[in-house]
Amino acid sequence: MTPEEFRRFGHEVVDWIADFRASIRDYPVLARTRPGEVADALPPSGPEHGEPMDLILADFRRLIVPGMTHWNHPGFMAYFATSGSGPGILGELLTAALNVNGMVWKSSPSATELEQVTLDWLRQWMGLPAGLFGTIYDTASTATMHAIMAAREMAAPEERGRGNWEKLTLYCSEQAHSSVEKGAVAAGIGQERVRKIAVDEKFRMRADALEEAIRADKAAGLKPFCVVATVGTTGVAAIDPVPEIAGITERHGIWLHVDAAYGGSAAIVEEMRHVMAGSERADSMVVNPHKWLLTPVDCSVFYTRRPEIVRRAFSLVPEYLRTEEDPRAVNMMDYGVPLGRRFRALKLWFVMRSYGRVGLACIIRRHMEIAREFAGWVEQDERFEVMAPVLFSLVCMRYRGADEQNTKLLEEINQSGKAFLSPGQVQGKKVLRVAIGNYGTEKEDLVRLWQLAREAAGRL
Amino acid sequence: MTPEEFRRFGHEVVDWIADFRASIRDYPVLARTRPGEVADALPPSGPEHGEPMDLILADFRRLIVPGMTHWNHPGFMAYFATSGSGPGILGELLTAALNVNGMVWKSSPSATELEQVTLDWLRQWMGLPAGLFGTIYDTASTATMHAIMAAREMAAPEERGRGNWEKLTLYCSEQAHSSVEKGAVAAGIGQERVRKIAVDEKFRMRADALEEAIRADKAAGLKPFCVVATVGTTGVAAIDPVPEIAGITERHGIWLHVDAAYGGSAAIVEEMRHVMAGSERADSMVVNPHKWLLTPVDCSVFYTRRPEIVRRAFSLVPEYLRTEEDPRAVNMMDYGVPLGRRFRALKLWFVMRSYGRVGLACIIRRHMEIAREFAGWVEQDERFEVMAPVLFSLVCMRYRGADEQNTKLLEEINQSGKAFLSPGQVQGKKVLRVAIGNYGTEKEDLVRLWQLAREAAGRL
Repeated sequence: MTPEEFRRFGHEVVDWIADFRASIRDYPVLARTRPGEVADALPPSGPEHGEPMDLILADFRRLIVPGMTHWNHPGFMAYFATSGSGPGILGELLTAALNVNGMVWKSSPSATELEQVTLDWLRQWMGLPAGLFGTIYDTASTATMHAIMAAREMAAPEERGRGNWEKLTLYCSEQAHSSVEKGAVAAGIGQERVRKIAVDEKFRMRADALEEAIRADKAAGLKPFCVVATVGTTGVAAIDPVPEIAGITERHGIWLHVDAAYGGSAAIVEEMRHVMAGSERADSMVVNPHKWLLTPVDCSVFYTRRPEIVRRAFSLVPEYLRTEEDPRAVNMMDYGVPLGRRFRALKLWFVMRSYGRVGLACIIRRHMEIAREFAGWVEQDERFEVMAPVLFSLVCMRYRGADEQNTKLLEEINQSGKAFLSPGQVQGKKVLRVAIGNYGTEKEDLVRLWQLAREAAGRL
Repeated sequence: MTPEEFRRFGHEVVDWIADFRASIRDYPVLARTRPGEVADALPPSGPEHGEPMDLILADFRRLIVPGMTHWNHPGFMAYFATSGSGPGILGELLTAALNVNGMVWKSSPSATELEQVTLDWLRQWMGLPAGLFGTIYDTASTATMHAIMAAREMAAPEERGRGNWEKLTLYCSEQAHSSVEKGAVAAGIGQERVRKIAVDEKFRMRADALEEAIRADKAAGLKPFCVVATVGTTGVAAIDPVPEIAGITERHGIWLHVDAAYGGSAAIVEEMRHVMAGSERADSMVVNPHKWLLTPVDCSVFYTRRPEIVRRAFSLVPEYLRTEEDPRAVNMMDYGVPLGRRFRALKLWFVMRSYGRVGLACIIRRHMEIAREFAGWVEQDERFEVMAPVLFSLVCMRYRGADEQNTKLLEEINQSGKAFLSPGQVQGKKVLRVAIGNYGTEKEDLVRLWQLAREAAGRL
């Protein structure tokens, strides 16, 4: 493809995206395709000879787009909603064109330094203390896995050579994301030693139960090494009592990791800054700009107070053999498993500059406001109930009936094409999670959803 | 950013990229920036209020571009060269605009199914047997880490709960990439039990030494569980004797992973298909389309004959508790640590269709031809020597003199702005790695490089 062909097709693709964004509400949110339908429409073998880009783009529109679930749709309220904003998309486009691999400083100084600068900006916006080291991973699962591996290195450096982690115990609440347990399994920690601590009536980890579990494990000769607290749990967006938990981890010398993948972004809103209280005492934390900060996936930010331990956890060269380096020429590959690294900071920089802190805070604030308003509507209808406090922009609602009725309600809503919700489980009962987080979501989308829900309930 | 603003700035960015691609040879390959220079040019805090996109794009050109090392430059021959081709960039642009997270089938049927289809196409192009399960990870480091974790699960499922891996031993050659040892460390395998097997005079793992090491470890009561063979080593692009190694791993019941991150792409060239010989007997393998198949980073393809073990390695739900699923609605999150997944298959599909197998094979063949031609020039100059067989498109050359002289030579070449090479070590001596792999690299770039090298040698 010559530069001129790139120009021509690039303009065509940009025009398609602009039209797509303008007409996004015309697309069904949830794909209406059957398993295998997309695959069956494609040839069983790749082409021997190149095909014209016109044809490829036509096939993209004809075969691929109808099989998409539209995460960038204002009616997308499943899982946690995300936004691929315009500035973020342009950043990704330039990242692909530059195509650098920022593994070492020399291989792309701008990629390395812009990552440090944007993450320091974000740190300030979140009200976190100076001196945190930041790095971008693909996902929060990966970030949490790295935290667990660093914690392992801090607690039992002598086992690095031998690989016996039998005594190590890890703690999270029973509401923590599955990535915590998965990260522990990946790190080779015994799955039996992952302790799921009970939660209180607001779904927060019970600090007293944590303390008790740690004491019991110590008494049994085990070695508590890592606690993962959550700010904005996946189930109901609860906030664990991080200050109390930090007191416990400090007393026992345990690594504290805070999973603020969803909730952390809210801290850039002045009146929500409190959600990160206590996290300044954590050893590491993760927040996902690709969730609530309008940055296209993937962009998961990991902060740590102990970069030297993260580095040691993955270093194959003993520290005393390291050659002197310019301290400003950081080699990012030293802080994780993947050697290759995309230039992800560029899209984050575009988003942060284009919206500014106030612009992003306004969108998050609006999401929280319409979530509370929606919860109010639900509470006023005696057929429904809200199953957990609305601290952010997630509403867990439920039809007061059987689980099967809630399943039916969910299916009807999702099949409407106007909204897409995911199911959840709260206190043993099936709920519908309304996760507001796409930058295009407005009150009218919630009005439509509520109308759909009530109509469907009327048919139950 | 409204759709119309996106259209306007999207066109502007596309035009900049088209011009950048047309004038790429005018840019110095290696960034000429000092550590901290980019960071110092940026404000210490992010903006409170949004800034105009005109200004952001101007700052991108003014502050970021000069600090880039240009991986997409035809003179880039460091590490392993890559290409962000036009079709690949357009694919990434659409991926960012759709912004889906393909964690489960429902969350994006097209992302899930196109990944399976494109990876099956690539499998056929590489001459690999039917029935391989494919998935895309970010990097080969991540793919190899997953292979080691799956091997661990196969060898010692009973330790999953307890986490004692003391007996497990892993094998790779002393020329294997550091990601193998890093993956073992991440998986919690004892670093002392990573065996670096000696190589022969062509830098290939010695199968007899591997067999001997395995027998010795077994005799000592240890449990050999994984062998990583390499097709195209980082140092000199050697090919381990995979058929012989497969015979050994089959006999001992050990997981065989083939790291063909670089070399595997060459198998789409008819006369190079032999490089994957034996890999059809491997349990898993990795090949990076983001290296030699014109796909922007990141796109690392992992194939396995044992998807059920990979799945089991990361599953938190016992198999007997799994609910019945439509076998065609695969949930890709089950096959790895990261829950979130970008729609990476789209760019690969664009590249495979736009170039066709023959088109990609022509480019790889040309790279190999000019590499051999270049090696011929080096061999004819008595001041220089070629330090390893040129099996792919990597030439390891050396000035017949002190290491310091080679360092000086390398620096002069890199500072010219016309080429960027990375150093290596072969048989204890410093070498200059000439890694040809950017799709724009032509014979003229090698002519220029050789002239630079000879002139610099004349000044030594």
